[in-house]
Amino acid sequence: MNRIANGRPAIPPQARQPVADLPASKIREIANAGFGRTDLLRFWFGESTRSTPEVIKQAAIAGIAADETFYTHNNGREDLREALSAYLARLHTARFDPGRVTVTSSGVSALMIAMQALLSLGDRVVMVTPIWPNVAQIPQLLGAEVTRIPVRSEAGGWALDLDELLAAITPATRLLVINSPGNPTGWTISREQQAALLQHCRRLGVWILADDVYERLLLGEGAGNAPSFLPIADPHDRLISSNSFSKAWLMTGWRLGWLVAPPELFTDLGKLIEINTSCAPGFIQSAGIAALAEGEPHVAALKADLTQNRNRLIAGLRAIGGVEAPSPEGGMYAFFRISGHPASVELARRLVAEAGLGLAPGAAFGPEGEGWLRWCFAAGQGALDEGLARLARWVSDRQAEEHS
Amino acid sequence: MNRIANGRPAIPPQARQPVADLPASKIREIANAGFGRTDLLRFWFGESTRSTPEVIKQAAIAGIAADETFYTHNNGREDLREALSAYLARLHTARFDPGRVTVTSSGVSALMIAMQALLSLGDRVVMVTPIWPNVAQIPQLLGAEVTRIPVRSEAGGWALDLDELLAAITPATRLLVINSPGNPTGWTISREQQAALLQHCRRLGVWILADDVYERLLLGEGAGNAPSFLPIADPHDRLISSNSFSKAWLMTGWRLGWLVAPPELFTDLGKLIEINTSCAPGFIQSAGIAALAEGEPHVAALKADLTQNRNRLIAGLRAIGGVEAPSPEGGMYAFFRISGHPASVELARRLVAEAGLGLAPGAAFGPEGEGWLRWCFAAGQGALDEGLARLARWVSDRQAEEHS
Repeated sequence: MNRIANGRPAIPPQARQPVADLPASKIREIANAGFGRTDLLRFWFGESTRSTPEVIKQAAIAGIAADETFYTHNNGREDLREALSAYLARLHTARFDPGRVTVTSSGVSALMIAMQALLSLGDRVVMVTPIWPNVAQIPQLLGAEVTRIPVRSEAGGWALDLDELLAAITPATRLLVINSPGNPTGWTISREQQAALLQHCRRLGVWILADDVYERLLLGEGAGNAPSFLPIADPHDRLISSNSFSKAWLMTGWRLGWLVAPPELFTDLGKLIEINTSCAPGFIQSAGIAALAEGEPHVAALKADLTQNRNRLIAGLRAIGGVEAPSPEGGMYAFFRISGHPASVELARRLVAEAGLGLAPGAAFGPEGEGWLRWCFAAGQGALDEGLARLARWVSDRQAEEHS
Repeated sequence: MNRIANGRPAIPPQARQPVADLPASKIREIANAGFGRTDLLRFWFGESTRSTPEVIKQAAIAGIAADETFYTHNNGREDLREALSAYLARLHTARFDPGRVTVTSSGVSALMIAMQALLSLGDRVVMVTPIWPNVAQIPQLLGAEVTRIPVRSEAGGWALDLDELLAAITPATRLLVINSPGNPTGWTISREQQAALLQHCRRLGVWILADDVYERLLLGEGAGNAPSFLPIADPHDRLISSNSFSKAWLMTGWRLGWLVAPPELFTDLGKLIEINTSCAPGFIQSAGIAALAEGEPHVAALKADLTQNRNRLIAGLRAIGGVEAPSPEGGMYAFFRISGHPASVELARRLVAEAGLGLAPGAAFGPEGEGWLRWCFAAGQGALDEGLARLARWVSDRQAEEHS
């Protein structure tokens, strides 16, 4: 076929520039380098190695058998929205009208829908970083400009400079994005910081998007849930909370999430869902109802495990010479660095090749993550211990090399 | 809480204007008017009343039991992409590299991903209309301008003025969208028209997005599949075919679709999926594999039913005085009008209230659909006959009123 147009050589087909400019996943780049290796310990993805609880799986199976395979309401089935509304009331001891709740086809879809609702070309977004790459790429796709305010390793944990963040949020800002507990650091915002940000954003008319997917995973003996903007805000505040069943209920591959938004947005969110995915599958919504009704023992068990794993992993990392490992307050990741290894992609690649250890490079989470590594500790203790041993051996071998 | 900012009264929270400007579904407006009524015959949605075939349901159930509940590849599981590639080869007697196939979380997600890949603010899109509202709303959300070229009722069917369409596609056009067989009319493009459009678009570097969700539902005794752009195009042509398991395999609520695109777009489509839904659930992808492997008898049975239903419905409609009912070549809709009733939303509302008949107003599919009604005939014959009887009675009562 003649593919020369008007005498000019054909240009290969390609996506538009803003799409081509989206960075390829640096995590996947490392994961691909280890593809097919059976001796690897993989801690790079944000996914537990545990299966979805049986009670949730059975609800979906029953849903399929009962032909819950037709279209549902764009904003989600009413029974799931009511179950979410009751769940939120239990969690936050405040009333949440089901008219504020919208079901989405995953947590990332919740973020996409929320940002489609709010962001136009040239809008300015402020976010606390380092952050899950998707959260920054969605505004990039929509043509918005992102200002990044990094948390810092301080006194064995992660700290936000609230004044720096407040100063970055100006009348020209459209949206503030807070992911707390955060991926990749586990940084968790305090109630006082939330109140100050809410007041500031209210005064300036700035929207807040709280990515709350790890709110149930505040770690530590007797820890409750992470502080949420929801109970301190008015239903009509410019606040959207995005959430997901993925992490707390071990439902990553199910692709079910939700939004809590001002009731004024309900119809528009439904219109956006109609043209994005139309609805989440009905039988998966049944799985969500089962998770809310029967999932608490599983959430508690996961939390207890993650707390143990965090303590064990952070202690193990700190015992390795040259390692800085701030303790995450929540979530399921340790974000740490090894002195003398400032290039995280290179380091992660070497750890795969030389130590059989699969970690995510910090650069995947933004420039301020460079030099760091993310270790997902939603894994078995045996695997974590073996991973620690491999890392310790690799670091000590490198040090021996340097001194030889 | 004080919601007065700087002495000015607070403005209620709202989505940005392009989202607020998306029209609310006129189909849902009519459907809501009939909410809770048990005596209604509902033909307004594009969904068969039949259940998903058991073999497909069982594959999903087995997938859940086997813990196919973790993240999958952004572009879809390799086994499903290979199954789709083999299916496309059978259908079009041409080879389709799995590197051209990307799995999406529904047909509408396929359209959204494809248009996100191609459309920037101000881009010009040409589409053949009337058309499923979502197809026109996605470019509207992305800030692109849509030019509509309507098909016309002619000689008992639907006809496209190819010269008019060719003239509308200029060097300033970014994308041509063709949905054939079309929703709502059933208009089906011919091989010759496809060849002329492909040649024209090639010459101008214009992309073609073929929404092929009804390609298996070409109707009539011994009818094959609708003509597709795929077998006449080069893999590197600016052509994307979007598709879905929803219609041909009775899987509307499963939310599984796919794209066939030039291999050059594979990585960028994966990046877009990562930030839209990340992947389709693994066990739903297993259902897709079962549909491709075992679904053909079900597709054939559906097609035979739809052919019978179309013939019966069109004959019945034409027997009613003042009704114009072009016969659809494919799909599952009759698009017809009743003389003397030019306002379709008003007419659809009256038919719900006065005849217990639920149809979609033509205005939902664009201004050129005004005055028409869409009747989904993926329904039981008894229901269709009763619907026809109700419509005939209503029309004759109205005529009697006028003459009394």
